Formats: sequence, C-alpha cells, structure tokens
Amino acid sequence: MKLLLANPNATDAVTRACAELARKAATPGTEIVAWTNRSGPPIVDSFYGDAMAARPLALGLAAVTPVPDAVVLAGFGSYGTNAVKEIFDVPVVGLAEAAMAYAVPLCHRFAVVTTSSRMIAYTEDLVQALGFAGRCATVRAVELPPLGAPSLPPDELVGRLATEATATGADLVILGGSRLSPYAAALRARIAPVVVEPVACAVALAEGLVRIGLRPSPTQKFGRPPRPLADYG
Amino acid sequence: MKLLLANPNATDAVTRACAELARKAATPGTEIVAWTNRSGPPIVDSFYGDAMAARPLALGLAAVTPVPDAVVLAGFGSYGTNAVKEIFDVPVVGLAEAAMAYAVPLCHRFAVVTTSSRMIAYTEDLVQALGFAGRCATVRAVELPPLGAPSLPPDELVGRLATEATATGADLVILGGSRLSPYAAALRARIAPVVVEPVACAVALAEGLVRIGLRPSPTQKFGRPPRPLADYG
Amino acid sequence: MKLLLANPNATDAVTRACAELARKAATPGTEIVAWTNRSGPPIVDSFYGDAMAARPLALGLAAVTPVPDAVVLAGFGSYGTNAVKEIFDVPVVGLAEAAMAYAVPLCHRFAVVTTSSRMIAYTEDLVQALGFAGRCATVRAVELPPLGAPSLPPDELVGRLATEATATGADLVILGGSRLSPYAAALRARIAPVVVEPVACAVALAEGLVRIGLRPSPTQKFGRPPRPLADYG
Amino acid sequence: MKLLLANPNATDAVTRACAELARKAATPGTEIVAWTNRSGPPIVDSFYGDAMAARPLALGLAAVTPVPDAVVLAGFGSYGTNAVKEIFDVPVVGLAEAAMAYAVPLCHRFAVVTTSSRMIAYTEDLVQALGFAGRCATVRAVELPPLGAPSLPPDELVGRLATEATATGADLVILGGSRLSPYAAALRARIAPVVVEPVACAVALAEGLVRIGLRPSPTQKFGRPPRPLADYG
Amino acid sequence: MKLLLANPNATDAVTRACAELARKAATPGTEIVAWTNRSGPPIVDSFYGDAMAARPLALGLAAVTPVPDAVVLAGFGSYGTNAVKEIFDVPVVGLAEAAMAYAVPLCHRFAVVTTSSRMIAYTEDLVQALGFAGRCATVRAVELPPLGAPSLPPDELVGRLATEATATGADLVILGGSRLSPYAAALRARIAPVVVEPVACAVALAEGLVRIGLRPSPTQKFGRPPRPLADYG
Amino acid sequence: MKLLLANPNATDAVTRACAELARKAATPGTEIVAWTNRSGPPIVDSFYGDAMAARPLALGLAAVTPVPDAVVLAGFGSYGTNAVKEIFDVPVVGLAEAAMAYAVPLCHRFAVVTTSSRMIAYTEDLVQALGFAGRCATVRAVELPPLGAPSLPPDELVGRLATEATATGADLVILGGSRLSPYAAALRARIAPVVVEPVACAVALAEGLVRIGLRPSPTQKFGRPPRPLADYG
Repeated sequence: MKLLLANPNATDAVTRACAELARKAATPGTEIVAWTNRSGPPIVDSFYGDAMAARPLALGLAAVTPVPDAVVLAGFGSYGTNAVKEIFDVPVVGLAEAAMAYAVPLCHRFAVVTTSSRMIAYTEDLVQALGFAGRCATVRAVELPPLGAPSLPPDELVGRLATEATATGADLVILGGSRLSPYAAALRARIAPVVVEPVACAVALAEGLVRIGLRPSPTQKFGRPPRPLADYG
Repeated sequence: MKLLLANPNATDAVTRACAELARKAATPGTEIVAWTNRSGPPIVDSFYGDAMAARPLALGLAAVTPVPDAVVLAGFGSYGTNAVKEIFDVPVVGLAEAAMAYAVPLCHRFAVVTTSSRMIAYTEDLVQALGFAGRCATVRAVELPPLGAPSLPPDELVGRLATEATATGADLVILGGSRLSPYAAALRARIAPVVVEPVACAVALAEGLVRIGLRPSPTQKFGRPPRPLADYG
Repeated sequence: MKLLLANPNATDAVTRACAELARKAATPGTEIVAWTNRSGPPIVDSFYGDAMAARPLALGLAAVTPVPDAVVLAGFGSYGTNAVKEIFDVPVVGLAEAAMAYAVPLCHRFAVVTTSSRMIAYTEDLVQALGFAGRCATVRAVELPPLGAPSLPPDELVGRLATEATATGADLVILGGSRLSPYAAALRARIAPVVVEPVACAVALAEGLVRIGLRPSPTQKFGRPPRPLADYG
Repeated sequence: MKLLLANPNATDAVTRACAELARKAATPGTEIVAWTNRSGPPIVDSFYGDAMAARPLALGLAAVTPVPDAVVLAGFGSYGTNAVKEIFDVPVVGLAEAAMAYAVPLCHRFAVVTTSSRMIAYTEDLVQALGFAGRCATVRAVELPPLGAPSLPPDELVGRLATEATATGADLVILGGSRLSPYAAALRARIAPVVVEPVACAVALAEGLVRIGLRPSPTQKFGRPPRPLADYG
Repeated sequence: MKLLLANPNATDAVTRACAELARKAATPGTEIVAWTNRSGPPIVDSFYGDAMAARPLALGLAAVTPVPDAVVLAGFGSYGTNAVKEIFDVPVVGLAEAAMAYAVPLCHRFAVVTTSSRMIAYTEDLVQALGFAGRCATVRAVELPPLGAPSLPPDELVGRLATEATATGADLVILGGSRLSPYAAALRARIAPVVVEPVACAVALAEGLVRIGLRPSPTQKFGRPPRPLADYG
Repeated sequence: MKLLLANPNATDAVTRACAELARKAATPGTEIVAWTNRSGPPIVDSFYGDAMAARPLALGLAAVTPVPDAVVLAGFGSYGTNAVKEIFDVPVVGLAEAAMAYAVPLCHRFAVVTTSSRMIAYTEDLVQALGFAGRCATVRAVELPPLGAPSLPPDELVGRLATEATATGADLVILGGSRLSPYAAALRARIAPVVVEPVACAVALAEGLVRIGLRPSPTQKFGRPPRPLADYG
C-alpha cells in the first residue's frame, strides 16, 4: 500500500521528521511517500499561513501520479483539507481528525497542546469544526521559538509540555503540531495522561480505511468539484 | 468612508451585481471600491473552489492601496476570511456573519437557502463555525444552472426560491449565495418570512463598525501573522 | 431617520448618558429621541426589577407617536424586549443582541462584564437566550455601588474594569450594563482586548436595518399580539 | 401545608379549572389557595401578554399574606417567574419546569403541545431557557379558538391533541397550556405516549420541596432584590 | 403506598442509612420497603462495580412480590437503571435524575460533589446522559476512605464537603453518593448554596408520580423487553 | 498480534459471523480469538438485555488468559464497555466508537441504521454518550425478525436497508447491529452513501492502537477498579 504523506508547509525538515514517524507507525507492506508543499508557507502559524498553504497543496496533490492508496495531510490544521478530499477518490486523513478518533476510546476528555498561544483559537475552531468539542477538555500551548530561531533544548521542551499537559487536568493529551511529534515518547515517560502523537494515528487510520475498503462517496460532500479542476485557476 | 468590496471569485458580473447592491445599501458618504479576485476561481461551488480562492484573495488584498476603512468579502463562504482579517487592522466582514448578525434580532430561527444541493454541507459547516447554529433552523438549496449556462428566467428562479424558503418553516430566510442576492426584492413580494440579502447587511455592518470605531485587536486572534507576509510564499 | 432610544428604567441620568452615546454614534441624518420608562424601576438590578420594567415599558412605547423608524432598548437585559418587538412593525434592537452581533466578526470568544455579581446569572441566561452562548467565554462583574450611593472615582472604576476584562482571557469584552458605557473609551486605552460599548452598536444596527429595509415579519414570531393591545389590561 | 396556586392571567375560569386539577393532585393535608392575577391580561397568548402579566403578578403575590408554604405559577410560560422566585423565601414552581422534571424519568424525549402555532417559538424559548432542550423532541400546537369564542367540542379537541401528539413521534407529551390540562385524562385513553398534565406535576413538586425542606438560597440567584420592593415602582 | 427502596450495592449499612433518610422524607401513608442487592458489589466505585451491580439488581427486582407502587434506586449512578425501568410498569426513579429534577427550579447551575476523584468522569457521563449537562456547573469530589476503612470524623467530612461545595461557585450542590447523604443537614448549616440530598428527592418524586398517576408507556422506550425475562439468562 | 473478539451475547452464530468479518479485515499477522458471552443473553435487544450481558461479559473477560493485545467488543451497544476497559491494560474498542471514528473523516453527517425501532432510543443514547451526536444526522431502524424466527431473504433485507439508508439523507450510513454486518457489501452495491461495517472498523482501530503503542492510562478514567476484582461479587 502506498500512503502519500503530504506536509502542508514548505519546510523539508518537518516533512522528514513526519515521514520518520510515519514509517515507524506503518505496517511492513506500506510505503510512505513523503511530499512537501514547496510553494506553501514555511509554517502554518496563523490563518494567513493556512490560506497560503491550501491552494498550492491542492494543486500539487492533484498532480501527483500515480494516485496513492490514501493521503495523510501532515499538519494539525485545516489548510484546505476538505478540498483535498474532493480531489481524491481515496481516503484523505488529517492529523487532527485521526488523533481525535484514536483518542476518544482511550479517555474521558482529551486536551490539545499546540505550539503557540496564538494558535489556541485556531485549534479550538478546528476541534469544533470536526465535531469533537464535546470530548475536548481544553486547548493550551507551549510557546515554541519561531522556525529558524534556535530550538529549545529537548529536555526543556519536554518539561514545558509536561507542565502544560498536566495542567489541563485531562486524561489524554494530543500533541497538536507536527513540530511537537518527535517529543511524544519522552513526554510519555514523564506524565500520567495518555500522550497521542497524531502522525502515527493518521497512518494507522489511513491504512485501516484502505484495508477495509472505505472511501468517501463520489456523489456526496467530498465528491469531485462540479467543474474540471483546471477551471478553478 | 471607503469600503473595499472584494469578490472572492473571478467573475466580473458577480462583482458588478454585488457592487450595485452595495451602493444601494451604503450611506451617502460611503465610496464602494469593487475588487475582483482575478486569479481566483470563476465560482466557489466546492471546497476546492474555496481553497483556490483564498490565497490569491489574501495576496491581492494585502497589496491594495490605500488601505480602505473596511473590507466586505462578497461571498457566502470561508475562502480565507480569517486570513484577510489578520492582514488588515480595519474591520473585515464576511457576508454570512453579517447576514446572521442582522437576522437574529428579527426572527426566531433563520434558514439559509444556497445555490446548489452540494453546497448545503459546506454552508452548514460555515454556520456552525460562526457560532450561529443554535439560531439556524435549516439549510436548503435551489439548484442554479452552472455559471455560463443560460440562467433561469427570473420568475422561475423566484418561484423556486419562494418554494424552498416557505418549506423551511423558518420566519426569516437568508439568501446564501451572491448569485441569489439580486432576487431578494422580488422574493420579498411573495413570501411571509423576512428575506435577508447579505451584501446589504455586510455594508451596513462594516459602515457601522467604522463609524463607532470598532476594529479587531492587534494582539489577539486576528492580529498580524507572526512573520512578514512575504515569508509565506 | 428617527430612532427612539428607550431607557427601560426610570433614571433620567442613565437616559441622558445613553442618549449622548447614541448621538455620538449616529449618522448625521439620524435624530435620537430619548425616552425614559418613568413608571419603571430606578434600575434593573434583579429579575424583579426586570419584571417591574417590562409592563410600563411596553405600555409606554405602544403610545409613542409618531411611530419612530426603529427602537433601541437601552438596557442590557430582557424586560419585555420581545413584547416590544410585537408592538412595532419597525426594527426593535436590544443592547445585548446588538453588542454581540457587532462583536462576533471581531473576535474569537467575547466576555461580558456586568455591574454586579448578582447579575451574572441573569446575564448568562440572556446570552443563552439570544443564541450566542457558543461564542461567549465568560460573564464577570465589577461591583458598582448601588444607584444613589456615591459613584466610584472614574479611575478606580476603569481600573477594576481593566482587571476583570483582562482576567476573562477573552479577546473582546462587552460592557454589559448601561452604567458602564461611559467608561468604554478610557478602558480601551488600557487593555488589549477589543472593548464593545453596546449603545453605539445598537444605534448602528438599528440604522442599518432601517436603511436596508429589514423589519420583522408581521405574520411570524414578532407579529402583533392576537388581541387589541387594550385587552391585555 | 398551604400552596398558593397563582394564575398569571386574569381569567377566573382558568383559575378554577387549575385549582380543581391541583386539588385532585394534592395530598390530603394540603390546602390549595387559588389566586388570580386580576390586573393581568385575560390570557398569555404572546410575548406582549407575558409582559403584561409579570408586573401585576409580582406585585400581587408580594402582598399575599400569610406567606404560603410554596407557590405554583399556573401558566406554561415565563411572565416573571424568576421575579416571583426572588420575592419568596419558599419554593416557587412554574408549570413548565415541573412538567419537564416529572417527564424526564419516564421518557426518551418529550414533546410539548401548545395552544396556538404562534406560541411554538415562545415555548421553544422557554424549554431552552429551562435547560431541557436536549430532552425535547419538538414543540407543536393545536389551534384553540380565542378566549371568549365558542370552545371546540371536547371530542374534537381531544382528537386534534391525539393527532398532534402522535405526530411528534415522542414517547411522552406535555400539555403546554393550562387550557389543555382538563383534557389530559381523555387524551391518555387514546394514545400510547405518556401524557403529562403540568398542574399536577407542579403541585407534587411543590409539596415535595416543602416536605423535604428545600428552598432557594437567600444569597444566590433567587435571593431578595437588592432594594426594598417598594423602590421598584 | 409502597415504595421499594433498592440499594444497588450489597452493603446493608448503606441500605439502612438510605432507608432512614427515605422514611424521614416520605408522607405518612407511604411504606418504605428496603431491599439490598446482596449479589451485587459492596460498593459502586468504578464502571466495573456498576456492571457487577446491574444484573443481580435487575434479576432481584424482577422477582420482588408484590410489585410495589414505585421503585427508588438508591445509588447515584447507572447500574442498569433503564433495565429496571423496562421490568416495571410502575415508576422507577434514580437518585441522580430525582436530585437534578428537584434542583433546577431552585438554582442557576448546580454542582455535584461525589465520593472519589475517580468517580468524577463517571458522574459527568451520568449528568450528560440524563440531559442535565446544560444546568451543571461542575462535578467535584471529596475523597472518602474506602469502604471498611475507618470513616472520617463527621466534622472533618462536613468541613471537606463545605470546602468543595463552596469552591464550585454554584448556587446549589447535589450530594452525589449515598454515603454523603447523612451529612446533608450538617452541611446546610455551614454553606450558602442549597444542599440537595438525593434520597429525599427520589422519594418525593416517586410518591408524586404515583399520586398523580404517571407511569412509563408500555409501548415505548421503557416497555417490557421483547422476550420473556427468563430468556435473557 | 492477538485480538480478542468478544461477542457480548450468547449466540454462537453471531460470534461466528463477526469473527469471519474480523478475519477478513485483519492484517496477516493478526490472530482473531473469538469469544462468546455464554452466560449472557441470546441478544441485546433492550436495556434489560444490555444489563444481563455486562456482568458475565466482564467476569468472563477478566478470566481470559493469556491477556490479548487488544479487545474488540462485537456489539453495537454499551453492556459494560467501560467496565471492560477498566479490567484491561490493553486497548478495548467497542463497535460504535470504532465505526464513528472511521466514519467522520469520510462524511458530513452519518446515520445509524439499527435492528429494531425499539433500539432507536438506546442507540441515540449511545451516540450521545460517545460524544458523536454533533456528527450524527439520525438513527433509524429496519425491523429484523426476532432471533430464532426465520430470517428475511437477504434480498429483501438489503432492500429495506437501502430504503432506510437513503431516507436518512446522510452521506454515510453505519450498520448499527452485528446482525446487519454481513449485508454491508450487498448494500454498498445499491446506494450512494458510504456504508460502514463496524466490525472491520473495530479490528482496524484495535490493530492500529496496538501497533502505535497507545493504551489507556492506568491512573485515569479506565484504570483498574479500586478493589480486587473478586471483591465485586
């Protein structure tokens, strides 16, 4: 099975980190094909970044050949997820919906920790839009340095994540930003709540959908757009 | 006062029709500056169309000089509305939020009639995202011919709108698509529920926000993106 | 255009302060006609005060001639708002619904600050009844001295408002009581969240509704009561 | 125990019918003291009627001596219910909250049938305000003739109630208007869903609250208004 | 009238304490028949305890003769409440639904205090399932010693209850566990919010339902199971 | 990997049918160990059946050795699911939560079709309890003959399923009862909405959770019960 792992931003390091997580999570027969949205923004850190990502993401993915068996959109956001679902006949899975789907059987109410306080509102909107608000206790943030600035020492970052995650009071915490994903294992060693790393969930969900033969209906919400794609400019 | 009326799609006829409605609704001192998203799709008839519209809309509007006193986004959808709010320090108003804000003091529960059955799910997501789902009775559609195909005779279109609007059982109906706006007056003559034409509401709301000096906070949800706009590609 | 600004309580000083705010917010051609509910309570500080206000308010407004172009009810509460809507064929706008309608395009989630801790429950009920609970982060109070007791020094009051408003964590704060309205400008100078003064919003909303020709349907929720008004005692 | 049964409208026939139902529902030691809101409207058939009822109801009940052990407000509406709760230290129970409290242990989702299509919106607001919307399947109406016009023959009225009640699909139906209460027994003989007559529920709830010693907190939402009652005009 | 008071756990001391509270709450003509779920768990302190209780509770109660006039399930939980409702034609009332039904007319939003932090999630699920989440401010816990360990001195327990109850900020507190019920009176003497003891509410509600002749519909949600009870094993 | 597939009812034919579906859905390395709740009811067709199933299910599964890598509860209901989650340190997945988790990325709003009209209320409660009500359009039923009566001819059953599924208007339909699962493929050939068969989803979800190393937290909602299991009777 071929899974296209599409990073909605243009930063190769993020693509590589996500692909590594994806390959660890995948079953032996699955090939992870990584793809970077090179005409997109370096990071989705705002609604503006989100809007800048969506169009090149949709255009780029529409041109991918051969068509994969499923698509994982490797960012914790919107950036045209539904548009990509319309393009493909195969399952398209976002990190947020996969993480929440895998979280709810394991918890009472989950929390999301995102990568900047600015993204809390954005993430609350996302949780609400996906229909999981009733199971979400809260959204909080650790403040990551801007892309390009020196990273936090891993220990300090994991410490801050542990503090925020515990402060939520929730029994499960979703890491809501692909830059946080690599720290999931270290965080698990430090806190009692379950720690959910979304890339792994999305790979598992996409593989599962393919294996059991589920795909969106071609005549419903995520059917092909009414006009040829080229018409949309 | 200068209001920028931005059509998120590339179809000039829609821009002209909206500008005409906007000028009728505006107070004497207000200048309506019409703008068309020429690099956008001819129509937003799908999530794909929405995603195609957002980036050129945001890029194009960021380049407009001089900065207007407020921006009206003349489409009944998302297409990067929040991104545009981040770009501007002045009020940015979408048709849907304006129509619903003006509707609720006049009704029990409103209905939205949109322009294709395909767009019902899209519109329900929009109403939910804006926080008005508790006041929305239902979303329905009249099926307009595709852009470019011959239009319906106005009488027939108004008749279909009247049928759908009455069938909602709601005491107020919002025309959820700028192609429907020109028929508001004719529809009002035929049905008992209030008929809300969103362009007029958005002009009135934008003018009101300017006049009373309200604008989004520069340090909150709709503050400027963290990086220079040029960085987002 | 003639706007009737109706103070639901009997205190002239409140009427005058609201009329001044209304005149500042109105467009040049709008005449603000102030009206005081002289047979009402001195203040609406309880459900009892609310109930005492509604009947004389409705009776008094039903007798106003000539009928204005729109009515603004200048209190942040219920006190028979829907009854007044039934009496008039023209738009009737309450402060709370206007403030929230103007707030939502500018924010993620708004907070309301009211004038006594006792009124928090009352105000939460109001926000819920109007359908905006999903966008409301919280309701809090500054404790104003009782009407008639010496006022707080403006600086101290603004300081307390700033403290409460900031503590809400919301990105927009609505001043939920007409006694707070005069301090909006001073509060804006001190805090980052947007500060919404409801009288200005209600004037703008009412003017907008009149200008674009929207009024409630005579055959629906806010149609005339079934019997002649005189029958209701 | 002395229960004050207060009819919020001025129609003695309604008071008498409710008192009869109340006496049938009461335990032997309970005295039902009937009270009519003589300065109120003949009927609460609109928000205007509701507003006309509230003030004389509150004023009149505040003057009742001796204070009863509990108060039942014998109308299916608002008309200042919370204001009356503030006046009394003893339990005050409205028909709607009592009916819904007694309904929910017996059903999946209840329906309310009210007395005119105009009152559907009013009743939906009431159910929402009381917090029971999640258990309410729908609100419908039979159209009663106006007060004073000849009544429907009982058989025809019960037939129409049966039709509406069955059409709701709910497993329990609340008669949402005191004019419907006398037909509860006949309706029960004809339909499968449970039929709830609210006066009986309110008497039982009020008696129960008295017997087990529950009353509202004097320092919370329903504590006494901040000023002497006479100050409110 | 004969009320069956069924303790879902196997601990006689709990049955006795509840029966005592029930007898105090009952009207003179009511006989309280206490019943202990001897094949159930000693306590319902987990979902496992809940599942262990349900089957012997349902089997045991199905064998009770003569059929009582109503059943009170004397635990603040689920443990097959709906199954018991299916067995009986007479009203079956759980502590939680009774307490909340009696609480809502007296308060703005209630809190529940339960007996261990572990049971907070369980109790939140219960409140949600019963449809009262919109009126519930929060669920908190005092940590009782395990059954069999020495009890807390009453003063200390009441002190802890007072601390938790006040910290909820709610204007009414429900004691969410039958082991807390005996401390209701002492708690009332110490805090401002109303204190609701559920056994008394359930007795009053059950008596009321019997007296006014309400029982679940035999053809709806709580009708008899489709097969003879013996078939279910 | 070893997945325990536990049928909560005692009917071997259902276990076999589910095991067959599970084996088709599983990846090559997964062993499906089927288990039947022999002391449970023949079918869960009521809340009573649900309560009869939970205790022997929990007792039986607690005794299974060796502990599997994950547990799939092969019924579309409650029957002590949370109790089973407390017993195991490994993931426990119910059909309903798995089906909904896999459905939401593929649809706007799903419908559930269950096996008798009586189970509609039960199923609505379940969807609500799992937090997916906001994404659920409706629950409907086809009426299966009682267990033991002659089955419907497959063509007729599929026809009825197709009729109900289409009538929901939803873009995805979940088969809410394990007796319906074998007809998923035939139904897919006849209708436009996506058809979700829950056993396959639960196997895929359980496998995914095991593979990516997620399990419930031992100190939170689904931690071990506070007392030794043997204490619960």
